[in-house]
Amino acid sequence: MRAWRINDEFGLDNFKLTDLPDPKPGHGEVLIKVMASSLNYRDLITIDGAYGPAVKAPIIPSPDGAGEVVEVGEGVSGLTVGDRVATMFFQTWQDGPPSQEKQSGALGAPLDGTMTEMMVLPEKGVVKIPDYMTYLEAATLPCAALTAWSALVTEGNIRAGDTVVMQGTGGVSLFALQIAKMHGVRTIITSSSDEKLERAKALGADEVINYRTNPDWDKAVKKMTNGVGADHIIEVGGAETLGKAVRAVRVGGTVSLIGVLSGAKGEFPLPLVLMRNVRIQGITVGSREGFVAMVKAMAQHEMHPVVDKVYPFEEAIEGLNYLKSGKHFGKICLDHS
Amino acid sequence: MRAWRINDEFGLDNFKLTDLPDPKPGHGEVLIKVMASSLNYRDLITIDGAYGPAVKAPIIPSPDGAGEVVEVGEGVSGLTVGDRVATMFFQTWQDGPPSQEKQSGALGAPLDGTMTEMMVLPEKGVVKIPDYMTYLEAATLPCAALTAWSALVTEGNIRAGDTVVMQGTGGVSLFALQIAKMHGVRTIITSSSDEKLERAKALGADEVINYRTNPDWDKAVKKMTNGVGADHIIEVGGAETLGKAVRAVRVGGTVSLIGVLSGAKGEFPLPLVLMRNVRIQGITVGSREGFVAMVKAMAQHEMHPVVDKVYPFEEAIEGLNYLKSGKHFGKICLDHS
Amino acid sequence: MRAWRINDEFGLDNFKLTDLPDPKPGHGEVLIKVMASSLNYRDLITIDGAYGPAVKAPIIPSPDGAGEVVEVGEGVSGLTVGDRVATMFFQTWQDGPPSQEKQSGALGAPLDGTMTEMMVLPEKGVVKIPDYMTYLEAATLPCAALTAWSALVTEGNIRAGDTVVMQGTGGVSLFALQIAKMHGVRTIITSSSDEKLERAKALGADEVINYRTNPDWDKAVKKMTNGVGADHIIEVGGAETLGKAVRAVRVGGTVSLIGVLSGAKGEFPLPLVLMRNVRIQGITVGSREGFVAMVKAMAQHEMHPVVDKVYPFEEAIEGLNYLKSGKHFGKICLDHS
Amino acid sequence: MRAWRINDEFGLDNFKLTDLPDPKPGHGEVLIKVMASSLNYRDLITIDGAYGPAVKAPIIPSPDGAGEVVEVGEGVSGLTVGDRVATMFFQTWQDGPPSQEKQSGALGAPLDGTMTEMMVLPEKGVVKIPDYMTYLEAATLPCAALTAWSALVTEGNIRAGDTVVMQGTGGVSLFALQIAKMHGVRTIITSSSDEKLERAKALGADEVINYRTNPDWDKAVKKMTNGVGADHIIEVGGAETLGKAVRAVRVGGTVSLIGVLSGAKGEFPLPLVLMRNVRIQGITVGSREGFVAMVKAMAQHEMHPVVDKVYPFEEAIEGLNYLKSGKHFGKICLDHS
Repeated sequence: MRAWRINDEFGLDNFKLTDLPDPKPGHGEVLIKVMASSLNYRDLITIDGAYGPAVKAPIIPSPDGAGEVVEVGEGVSGLTVGDRVATMFFQTWQDGPPSQEKQSGALGAPLDGTMTEMMVLPEKGVVKIPDYMTYLEAATLPCAALTAWSALVTEGNIRAGDTVVMQGTGGVSLFALQIAKMHGVRTIITSSSDEKLERAKALGADEVINYRTNPDWDKAVKKMTNGVGADHIIEVGGAETLGKAVRAVRVGGTVSLIGVLSGAKGEFPLPLVLMRNVRIQGITVGSREGFVAMVKAMAQHEMHPVVDKVYPFEEAIEGLNYLKSGKHFGKICLDHS
Repeated sequence: MRAWRINDEFGLDNFKLTDLPDPKPGHGEVLIKVMASSLNYRDLITIDGAYGPAVKAPIIPSPDGAGEVVEVGEGVSGLTVGDRVATMFFQTWQDGPPSQEKQSGALGAPLDGTMTEMMVLPEKGVVKIPDYMTYLEAATLPCAALTAWSALVTEGNIRAGDTVVMQGTGGVSLFALQIAKMHGVRTIITSSSDEKLERAKALGADEVINYRTNPDWDKAVKKMTNGVGADHIIEVGGAETLGKAVRAVRVGGTVSLIGVLSGAKGEFPLPLVLMRNVRIQGITVGSREGFVAMVKAMAQHEMHPVVDKVYPFEEAIEGLNYLKSGKHFGKICLDHS
Repeated sequence: MRAWRINDEFGLDNFKLTDLPDPKPGHGEVLIKVMASSLNYRDLITIDGAYGPAVKAPIIPSPDGAGEVVEVGEGVSGLTVGDRVATMFFQTWQDGPPSQEKQSGALGAPLDGTMTEMMVLPEKGVVKIPDYMTYLEAATLPCAALTAWSALVTEGNIRAGDTVVMQGTGGVSLFALQIAKMHGVRTIITSSSDEKLERAKALGADEVINYRTNPDWDKAVKKMTNGVGADHIIEVGGAETLGKAVRAVRVGGTVSLIGVLSGAKGEFPLPLVLMRNVRIQGITVGSREGFVAMVKAMAQHEMHPVVDKVYPFEEAIEGLNYLKSGKHFGKICLDHS
Repeated sequence: MRAWRINDEFGLDNFKLTDLPDPKPGHGEVLIKVMASSLNYRDLITIDGAYGPAVKAPIIPSPDGAGEVVEVGEGVSGLTVGDRVATMFFQTWQDGPPSQEKQSGALGAPLDGTMTEMMVLPEKGVVKIPDYMTYLEAATLPCAALTAWSALVTEGNIRAGDTVVMQGTGGVSLFALQIAKMHGVRTIITSSSDEKLERAKALGADEVINYRTNPDWDKAVKKMTNGVGADHIIEVGGAETLGKAVRAVRVGGTVSLIGVLSGAKGEFPLPLVLMRNVRIQGITVGSREGFVAMVKAMAQHEMHPVVDKVYPFEEAIEGLNYLKSGKHFGKICLDHS
């Protein structure tokens, strides 16, 4: 089989399509023919070696994959050859709230990920996908979609009539938009591009804010909510945007911290968090039970993930460069089939 | 009646015991002979005029009071003359989660507070206190105790076997210690004074950390919890300590942000909040329903608040100066009786 | 003003349109010109005197009303003349979980209700209604709609992908259907009439069961859910249907007990409740905070309550007889305007 | 090895100490030298064959055991030889809420249980026990203690100041008493024996009711709670007592249905459940995560389970007959060592 791998040195220049022996499933494991994977900023960090000593070469990146079970190991009871599955980000987080132990084995870093033709995973490390969904679509779910679901549903407990703000039009934000709409929630989305905002509207966004022409997006949100603030904010920006998120959320509302794109460190207004009783909730992906519930909801609504662009497996580098450009709207996929 | 009041200019020098006409209870209101009040840092901010234009002179500070109902207005159904009551911090937050509206009327700033001999409040703006508790003890509850209860019980959902860390030995931290112990929780408390730590131990602290001799108190907490981290941290320090709190709490744990003593602005490690799925929960006091539940629990356990020092009503300035010194262990009270 | 009232003796024959003096709003109260009311089985019980000594004559029935504020009493701060409002079932349940005290003052029994031209209520005893909703529509909300909202949202925490079963096509069940659909939930509804089931489908029901031709509706539900059972069942039938509800719900699911139409007493399978970890949750209407949240959600979706038939105010008896017939689909209203 | 087993025919007469080959641990499994087991009514039902076709002979009863790991299979990562462990009732319920799948594999019926000298279980099917606890004590936990913990803590969310009622002095009720006290809860316990009530007081019961001399125990509970009712009732009696439980619990309170000793079927007051907004929550044992949390809490408090009587392994029949007599106070154990 072939896999995209950092073999020794980190860095995109050293990221190579490598020939490797086919793996064999052990006890409780299945062999998957990977049909599609999808890309995340996380993969760029992995490839650059920026995770530090916790992630060692050789490493195959990406937690996001979907494929067909082609062989089952001894003791496997829930899957058979031919089953269509997606991969789990945290291989051991089956259920319940997070813990250090449950979050120890993440696919793509430090464990080998999905940018490969074949992979072996525990049967509990994958989730069945519904028939209506293509492999390419399913490959977008493990990281971005489950993060959005955990933020809004598992932890956020959104309900119809709530207002949710999504920052930007990356993978997590668009899934959050779709999941929020599914629950009858009012949605506000921000972007620096009017064209992307138009596409977000077509996807169901109730209100849009161009934060380039309207940098005080927090005040815009306040205005749209009669001075009360939003119930929930999907915060992907980090240090630069968190202060505004705390101002844009209502007293007692939630800011789901799911990304730190604009930088890791920054001042932020503690007294406001305190006085407005804001909850800042760090979110990293989620459990298998959450994944199963999410897929069930998506199947009921025949929801289609937003796939921006598909690259052939061999053109992973092009895909990663496109991801870097920030031009995408939704997810970027590799077609392994 | 006499009341301690900023009459025109802000500043401790302008804080005067002032003769005022006795108030009369209107519809749904009661007249209270205030028997005791207690002091909070908040009162120093009020007196200094540091809240800005939201708090105008003349102003009587302090949300913390207890006294006897001496007259009831028309339409009062739940209280009679002779009832012993404590004051509510938020006069209109009766029940349920916080909102801007519920938090609009805070006693002591912007509403006139308890540093007075007589006061009129809505009957729903006070809570009955149990017989075993003195007025001095009851006067410590409205702000500090209810804040600790809201953090640990209403929002925190602590349970036996959990580990809670309290920063320092101020009012909120000592109430948190007592409330945590009441729920069978393991408690760790920090202080810069070994003598205060000894007193905390006597009060039930399971483990103590002197953060002067052991500045890496986060690592100490990790060690005491087998590398897992504490379930809940009562964060009173603000910018300087929040980073350590995020390191000392377990994956998926809660940091209750209830004070910003060390400063309002500071860097703090966003990626850790995200990756460790930390919940940072801003807390401001709580609802009347929470107060009633707390008092019921205290009565069952005949819990006595820690009153460090009592000053006669006339010596409020001395009390405030003692508060400033930071030498106290628990609450400082004024005796109005 | 005129009001429908039991003046002395109970019984529909003694239910008379009676001339009464116009009421005046006291402190904190508003005078409402009632424009519409709606009917519930509860009103028949009230009129028949079947509540026993707790409900005394003279009594004006019905908790369900909507109208215009025409005068405000002293101390009213949140309402002005001209405001459009609906009445609250429990006048004192403002917020938070239920309690004996909060449920003490129910409109229509034991307090005088809405089958009147004018009424006085505390300003906290009404809720503003959105512009898009007619008075007739708004009059259907206080009892049936809030009960459905409390069952599914406040207590039930439904989420997209869940399956909810509604028994019958009465007021609560149809509101439950609409509220469930609003949250992206899969809905199954039962009825003895194929024609009503067709109408339910038009309203959004995903699946329907005629329990006359298919009395084992529990097995039908199991089949529709791959043998797992529904997540939530809206139980209105009482003794005769509860056993089937317990069989039709999934392990760990919820049966919201909101009516006992088929009888108050009956055997029911305790061991199944235990072994399947079923939660049976008694629901009676809900709080003002719930009402406000519900109306906000409805306004966002411009949801229209299902009004089956409207009678002029003077024809209340005809309306009550139609209610008794059980032929209705949704709510029956009186037009007071 | 020897094991107590129904080999062919059900019935206590056919329950025999049987010689069997020693088992060997497979992948992910451990071999346990069982040092102690404990008895439950459930075992009598199993032995009598009263579970019907779901439980087939041959069968070794009892879910309750504790012992030493003496051999580990391939792929075991969390346990080593010498570890002291207790067994899990549901071998596959690791975490999160219950489901049909998680509750499919119960030890003692339908899976072979702990009344044996040696047994093999998946490593995730056992839980480590703390040093201070004897094997006999630990053997009482898997069924009764975890049921009480799930009812009060996981599902019940008890807090200091709450009032909990325990019916009788069997295993679950005494664990509920100890767990409630650990959380600062006020406890009321019922029994038909004054002597047992005295022992319950010594164990921490705040109030006691002899339901033989005072059959209206629901009214007694109401009186003890100022007419409000208890927050939570541990219901073990079933049909005969449930009606009283519904009357004894407060509006909005919880009745945890954990046993049906007095009979499976009976009338019960549905309208009261509805009108008082009671939650009846079926409970069956709990998850591994709950077990781990419970053991952590017990260790913190060095809580000792109440072991009424210990029989040698060979005298299991005598133990079962003593259980039948209902004379016990707490748990009955078998010593396998």
